[in-house]
Amino acid sequence: MSVKTTTLPSGLRIVSDRMAHLETASIGVFVGAGSRHEHLSEHGLSHLLEHMAFKGTRRRSAREIAEDIEMAGGDLNAATSTEHTAYYAHVLAQDIPLALDILADVLIESTFEASELEREKGVILQEIRAVEDTPDDLVFEMLNSAAFPDQPIGRPILGTAERVSGFSGDAIRAYLATHYLAGTIVVSAAGAVEHNFLCNEAARVFSRLPSVCPEWDPAPAYYRGGDKRMKRRLEQVHIAVGFEGTPYSNPDFYALQIFANAAGGGMSSRLFQEVRETRGLAYSISAFHWGYSDTGLLGFYAATDPKNSGELMRVALDCFGKAALDLSDAEIKRAKAQMKVSLLAALENPAARCDQMARQMIAFNRVLAREEIIAAIDRIDTSQIRAEGARALRSSPTVAAIGPVAKVFVPDRVALQLKGI
Amino acid sequence: MSVKTTTLPSGLRIVSDRMAHLETASIGVFVGAGSRHEHLSEHGLSHLLEHMAFKGTRRRSAREIAEDIEMAGGDLNAATSTEHTAYYAHVLAQDIPLALDILADVLIESTFEASELEREKGVILQEIRAVEDTPDDLVFEMLNSAAFPDQPIGRPILGTAERVSGFSGDAIRAYLATHYLAGTIVVSAAGAVEHNFLCNEAARVFSRLPSVCPEWDPAPAYYRGGDKRMKRRLEQVHIAVGFEGTPYSNPDFYALQIFANAAGGGMSSRLFQEVRETRGLAYSISAFHWGYSDTGLLGFYAATDPKNSGELMRVALDCFGKAALDLSDAEIKRAKAQMKVSLLAALENPAARCDQMARQMIAFNRVLAREEIIAAIDRIDTSQIRAEGARALRSSPTVAAIGPVAKVFVPDRVALQLKGI
Repeated sequence: MSVKTTTLPSGLRIVSDRMAHLETASIGVFVGAGSRHEHLSEHGLSHLLEHMAFKGTRRRSAREIAEDIEMAGGDLNAATSTEHTAYYAHVLAQDIPLALDILADVLIESTFEASELEREKGVILQEIRAVEDTPDDLVFEMLNSAAFPDQPIGRPILGTAERVSGFSGDAIRAYLATHYLAGTIVVSAAGAVEHNFLCNEAARVFSRLPSVCPEWDPAPAYYRGGDKRMKRRLEQVHIAVGFEGTPYSNPDFYALQIFANAAGGGMSSRLFQEVRETRGLAYSISAFHWGYSDTGLLGFYAATDPKNSGELMRVALDCFGKAALDLSDAEIKRAKAQMKVSLLAALENPAARCDQMARQMIAFNRVLAREEIIAAIDRIDTSQIRAEGARALRSSPTVAAIGPVAKVFVPDRVALQLKGI
Repeated sequence: MSVKTTTLPSGLRIVSDRMAHLETASIGVFVGAGSRHEHLSEHGLSHLLEHMAFKGTRRRSAREIAEDIEMAGGDLNAATSTEHTAYYAHVLAQDIPLALDILADVLIESTFEASELEREKGVILQEIRAVEDTPDDLVFEMLNSAAFPDQPIGRPILGTAERVSGFSGDAIRAYLATHYLAGTIVVSAAGAVEHNFLCNEAARVFSRLPSVCPEWDPAPAYYRGGDKRMKRRLEQVHIAVGFEGTPYSNPDFYALQIFANAAGGGMSSRLFQEVRETRGLAYSISAFHWGYSDTGLLGFYAATDPKNSGELMRVALDCFGKAALDLSDAEIKRAKAQMKVSLLAALENPAARCDQMARQMIAFNRVLAREEIIAAIDRIDTSQIRAEGARALRSSPTVAAIGPVAKVFVPDRVALQLKGI
């Protein structure tokens, strides 16, 4: 196995996977803090900090950050999620030191200058409005907030216009000082990278990262269920339905992943076959299962003609419910095969590999070998998968919908259909 | 170079790039026919055919097509564009024969059964409505149609609800018989693939493909410019502005690609720096240059607060206009470096590589070596790039906008600002 990991004395973890045939490398700096680590008064701050990181440091203006990486043909990117904030670069092998230098600079030396802050708030207000105009993004934000009401994990990652407008440079600095600590950060690289060189460079540029231990944990999440429906004049109604999923730290996590894939993942899944192929009820229909550290969300999304939305929901819920009763060995074999090939494809792509290793380090403090994941998937049998699906479907449903929502309903617990379970 | 090409006696071209370190392969069957090859009475037929290809063949039902590929952990996909229709599979090396067999089956043996056709029309009507609900898709459809009015190249790829509803199985069969000919098709594979084996398998499964020469050429495109504005209640106004670009077959194509990248491609580009970083006018702002075989479209897209839309347009047009006068050597060096690293990254990814080789085969009947493209990029100097930008900006502008469009204007020819050119 070409994966190597090192923990520096500061607590900073470094992981790499050398892909000897490549000339480029993906480098990610993953911080184990995201929107669910925010107090209500901090809502939107993780994402604002991610934006402000590129707005100037003690050594580089915003323009110089962009010019330095792009002069090398590289690119920088960043993303804030519920549990992580990630900063990425993709560069030629020879420019790994430059990429690390820039990533460390923006994480440690950002100045959060007041005029830059005011301007960037305006950019984020535009980003919030863009979500409002994108029903297939907004419906997932509504689903999450209905599933986890009044909890950090259920809040929109971007924050609200009111809250974002009010943040000061000091608020950002305080959040940074508390959350961007060596012990919560993973430097991950995949592609044309040599581990010892990476460690030496990372140790040097990240030497000023505080080595104190983090003293925070996110508030535990409680799945509740509920509904949010927003009436809008749209051509389609966008519907997302959710149930309580399984945390990725739970041994049953893969069982529910397989359930979601078999019931609604690919073109051969029940959901796709029933909703799109047999009845032509939707162009977009798919199931998902998102794992968080301590909870999860299993569900499906579809967009359809408003007049068909009631039928679509009934058919899709029926697919899910029946799958928990009688998913076949052949269906499960197909879902497992798809998951294994997806896993292999991720190993072959430096950006996907970099991302995957960083997430595993934050979740498990180690990188899971491909063979280990495949063995875990293979070990799960049909009855476990049905049982885990049935467990999820017994939870209180969550429904989010945007558009002409008149026919969208909140289902009784699907468990009612699971006679005999 | 690991690229090999073969032309079979039928005219079918086969290209492969063996990436010895991979265990998976991407396989694409690219047909050199898309929406611009349709007569008005056929509008939407390329896309309908692409959908119907998966709805059953003489040997496999729709469900069996999905099950056969997914049982191997693979996936199938397809896309219709203005000049191509592409069918893809991504599989383990050992399943390349299966992937080719399924791809040939759906391309040659589809039955277009009447009840499947009626249902699939319903799915496409949903897809058309989904575009209506997605302003950042719809605005590009409007831009293309305003730039090339009353021409096949300017028509939406999906067709119209009226036209799609009216197509018969016979219409699809007639279009297939005329357009899916060995001489217009390229089989492209990248990853864990061996060329001779690929050729033998492809020759066998595609043996029934008609070997007659195609007797059609698309109607030549004439860039005209114009405007389409659609008033809608949205949080943002979505604006796309275009000018006459350069065909990919033209020696000046790369000059305009570099112009677009330097003026508005990356984070260090003028457009991003002026519009987002200096003025905070938009979250999304970027330039693009699309090359077609005989024309092109250079432009930018932004979404912004309606009250700022006039200012955004003035600033962005000014960036473009000034870039044609005074793009610096440093800016051009950065744009070239980014293009070269992007090119390398595409070579390292089997799906991107498969796609790139197929497009080059259809455009040039050969695969361009990386060194050749880099040499072509390096050969172009600053004055050529400015001149090619100025040439494009002298064309009649095209404007498309959706949302509260009151402040969106159709600019005078930007050339007016280019004093002394």
